[in-house]
Amino acid sequence: MAARRKPQLTDAARPTTFEVEAYNERGEMVPTAIAGEHPLTLYLDKREVVTLMTLGHAPEALAIGYLRNQRLVDSIDDIAAVQVDWESEAVAVTTRKKTRDHSERLKKRTVTSGCGQGTMFGDLMEEIDSIELRKDVRLADADLFVLLEKVRKHETIYKQAGAVHGCALATSAGEILMFVEDVGRHNAVDAIAGRMWLDGIDGSDKVFYTTGRLTSEMVIKCAQMRIPFLVSRSGLTHMGHAIAKKVGITMLGRASGRHYLAFTGKERLLRTAPQPTAFA
Amino acid sequence: MAARRKPQLTDAARPTTFEVEAYNERGEMVPTAIAGEHPLTLYLDKREVVTLMTLGHAPEALAIGYLRNQRLVDSIDDIAAVQVDWESEAVAVTTRKKTRDHSERLKKRTVTSGCGQGTMFGDLMEEIDSIELRKDVRLADADLFVLLEKVRKHETIYKQAGAVHGCALATSAGEILMFVEDVGRHNAVDAIAGRMWLDGIDGSDKVFYTTGRLTSEMVIKCAQMRIPFLVSRSGLTHMGHAIAKKVGITMLGRASGRHYLAFTGKERLLRTAPQPTAFA
Repeated sequence: MAARRKPQLTDAARPTTFEVEAYNERGEMVPTAIAGEHPLTLYLDKREVVTLMTLGHAPEALAIGYLRNQRLVDSIDDIAAVQVDWESEAVAVTTRKKTRDHSERLKKRTVTSGCGQGTMFGDLMEEIDSIELRKDVRLADADLFVLLEKVRKHETIYKQAGAVHGCALATSAGEILMFVEDVGRHNAVDAIAGRMWLDGIDGSDKVFYTTGRLTSEMVIKCAQMRIPFLVSRSGLTHMGHAIAKKVGITMLGRASGRHYLAFTGKERLLRTAPQPTAFA
Repeated sequence: MAARRKPQLTDAARPTTFEVEAYNERGEMVPTAIAGEHPLTLYLDKREVVTLMTLGHAPEALAIGYLRNQRLVDSIDDIAAVQVDWESEAVAVTTRKKTRDHSERLKKRTVTSGCGQGTMFGDLMEEIDSIELRKDVRLADADLFVLLEKVRKHETIYKQAGAVHGCALATSAGEILMFVEDVGRHNAVDAIAGRMWLDGIDGSDKVFYTTGRLTSEMVIKCAQMRIPFLVSRSGLTHMGHAIAKKVGITMLGRASGRHYLAFTGKERLLRTAPQPTAFA
């Protein structure tokens, strides 16, 4: 087997917070940290794909993950280079198969909103039908609580400046493998998807944590990465619930401290704290 | 002056919450209300424009406001009919000037993200340069606190189900004129923009309140509606701040109870509570 060819990457993270002057209700000036937000236009083989508004903390991983989750690139091996240039507010992704025509897929992309970004929504829903998540993996509540505690301590940009969402990829033992914050929920997810590709990490036994809400697109992206556990501090929408049920993901909402609500896939949960008994 | 011709509208709101079963950390079943989320594909004179993921509470106003904020329709008078059909998950907007070609504008639209939806970002930034917000309007902190209290009591879907953002249009006396919740921040703003057009409401002396973060797109939309006061319970981003400064909007973040942080345009604020003194 040939060694994996890693893409050439820039390493162009932006400062994540900026300090501005604010005045409180007593008229006092309060220096306040605010989150960065920068436009970053993504070019795939010189073709303009999207302008992402991003914190700019992990722009290379974001670009790769966006292309992965939008199914515009099939494998990390197809990516030759990712070059971020903040001067021109652009990231250029060059593939090894330059002859491939992206027009067809780009044309099919419709814009979805509801705090989402452009997706090939119809296509993704079709793909969802074919996804099988592992049934032989378990998450013990004791390990979940360990993860929630680690995440709570980890959200540094949010604590400083607010206005960002955090996402974490973790093991089912509660160990955080990566943690990304961004001004958009979807950017944070995409950046994790990008880093998973770069680091060759398999999602099929992992836990995905997000501070954001569990909307349809969030569940779809998690399922695309084959991750069986999706955990959020926030709530969920009806469609997020419907898709989670369909794809059989284990979805927990309102997860914080030692509390959670399991909405779907509870057969993968084990209640070991305080005493080990099977869930349900 | 000819009487304004109102468009023909359906009145097709969806149920806003659904009840599902959830299991808490003690393994107990907890019936839980979750927010609706429905795809709604918008057609402008039979041309597909966008698929919005929405709570579906005010779909006609959402469609109109989306077209307004995207500058795809210039006046409410140009809209002949707005027909929502949930069976086909579609809203058809028919204009009176069917000959007009939307292709040019639709082509220029790029997809922005960061919790945003598709916008003609470059065009909007150009437009921002030409916007003048009124300088002769004031907001007294006592009235702001009245508004914050009213908003706090008003967020019914959020309280029931979470996972939605709320927006309100209010007078500078703290009176709520309209209140819209949706699964996406931008949908809620767009629905308010749509209702303002339908009801012939001028934004130039109004207050816009949002539970969501003050990102670039939120500030741009508020400025487009000529609203001088933008108030959020949440934080803001660097670019939201930069645009607010440029356009001279009065932007308050972290507004809750009797607290706020004024980031820009504080010359329009009056501190009257507890004692009337000019701000700053």
